[in-house]
Amino acid sequence: MPKFYGHIPGVPVGTLFKSRKELAKAGVHKPYMDGIHGTKTEGADSIVVSGGYVDDEDLGDLIIYTGAGGNDQQTKRQVSDQSVDLHGNAGLITSELEGDPVRVSRGVSGAGFRYDGLFSVVQHWMDVGIDGFKIVRFRLEKLPDTEPQLGPTAPSDAASYATTTVTRRIRDSKQARLVKDWHENACQVCDAEIEIDGDRLYSEGAHIRPLGKPHEGPDDVSNLLCLCPNHHAQFDYGGLIIGTDLQIKNRITGKPMGKLRTHSKHAVAVQHLAYRLNMFP
Amino acid sequence: MPKFYGHIPGVPVGTLFKSRKELAKAGVHKPYMDGIHGTKTEGADSIVVSGGYVDDEDLGDLIIYTGAGGNDQQTKRQVSDQSVDLHGNAGLITSELEGDPVRVSRGVSGAGFRYDGLFSVVQHWMDVGIDGFKIVRFRLEKLPDTEPQLGPTAPSDAASYATTTVTRRIRDSKQARLVKDWHENACQVCDAEIEIDGDRLYSEGAHIRPLGKPHEGPDDVSNLLCLCPNHHAQFDYGGLIIGTDLQIKNRITGKPMGKLRTHSKHAVAVQHLAYRLNMFP
Repeated sequence: MPKFYGHIPGVPVGTLFKSRKELAKAGVHKPYMDGIHGTKTEGADSIVVSGGYVDDEDLGDLIIYTGAGGNDQQTKRQVSDQSVDLHGNAGLITSELEGDPVRVSRGVSGAGFRYDGLFSVVQHWMDVGIDGFKIVRFRLEKLPDTEPQLGPTAPSDAASYATTTVTRRIRDSKQARLVKDWHENACQVCDAEIEIDGDRLYSEGAHIRPLGKPHEGPDDVSNLLCLCPNHHAQFDYGGLIIGTDLQIKNRITGKPMGKLRTHSKHAVAVQHLAYRLNMFP
Repeated sequence: MPKFYGHIPGVPVGTLFKSRKELAKAGVHKPYMDGIHGTKTEGADSIVVSGGYVDDEDLGDLIIYTGAGGNDQQTKRQVSDQSVDLHGNAGLITSELEGDPVRVSRGVSGAGFRYDGLFSVVQHWMDVGIDGFKIVRFRLEKLPDTEPQLGPTAPSDAASYATTTVTRRIRDSKQARLVKDWHENACQVCDAEIEIDGDRLYSEGAHIRPLGKPHEGPDDVSNLLCLCPNHHAQFDYGGLIIGTDLQIKNRITGKPMGKLRTHSKHAVAVQHLAYRLNMFP
């Protein structure tokens, strides 16, 4: 199942298709039924947002998308749990990790399907849907339509694959700076201190309950941790979880990782830790 | 010396000023002489690009900027070495690490100075300038003029500081994926394996000679390493250096960190390591 990331040449953003079959024929979204086209190994190159899941939230340039599975196609209701290991979901997580763009097509009432351009998968987490079953959720953000047209490029085609690499860019708020200062840039999980140029230590401010929709976590010190990049990445991607008793656990292996180091000025709010435990149960 | 990040209200991008004095009065760039306004603690909020340094390269939305110091103001030539610890340079490095926007004003022949909007400091490194002395160089990239107007916000003013936090986003090329696969996502410096959701390991592809101007490093396996986020950050920010004999060293403490782990399929090019040694001597 080769994947073709990016725009399909000759298919401008806004193109209408009468049916899923037409959408598939144009190469915009290949499967006739599945909402996500992708696998864990290759990532997902396209999705369709068509009102098939009651928990989807389509906010235009921001989509809170429900993963695949557990859905009754007749009633559109969830009838069982979803999993991050299922093909389509695992594909979108690969796209999140590798920064690959995902084509988004939307169902348009009475007009079929419209190709709406490229989105970036910026987050995934677990939730309990309206119907009471576990669902995987994805936050997708629209990329500018002026993004370079990557064209039909299979990841196995080294020569023509985009060469861009966007490096780490973390915008620190004043609150994050406070927390990092209190902890003197030492990781609250492992005490690591990363020495960098100009006689500085490098650390990152990590939000416990994420900012922005749908989480709306606050950007204040009660919702921030000072972490090394390793534990920040592991925390962001659901590999590390912190209990309301501040006990840290490797969520994948189950191994205890000690207790979160605290500072007298730094009051971490238990409800934010509880929120995150629900995101990665 | 309070810093005010972002646009100055009432000063649209493109505003012309007759002199440095007028630029200072408007609050766009406070010092009358210095090219950089900032300190290590607070970061830099503005610079002026005015042809004062022979090594500057002004490419419009991309500026390769020369740090402060060692410059004869009469002849505009370098007469001694620059340092990352000097106030203005240390300020721009703080802005790089904290993701703060920098106001850029340019000298306009016959017309004084023009406010050209906000730029992001994305990289710094050492170089030897045209005149044979060490210089600090910065890569600055223009931010969209539609960026939220942060307004006059001192970092000490918690209430009104922008709450945006942009998380890590690394776009993997096909080449980076190959290297990560060969090393099975284990860091080539410390063997760390970061376990994350969906039974995966997280690693990052790090370019030795950076991509893009002015370095123009290639995006191929000879120029890539598989690193954990900690060592990627330390590598990016000049805290870790790898000799052409693959011996790793903490550049700040001088402490040896062992030898880079290699893989039979992964030929790292010595010339790229040599290039980077010149960036962080």
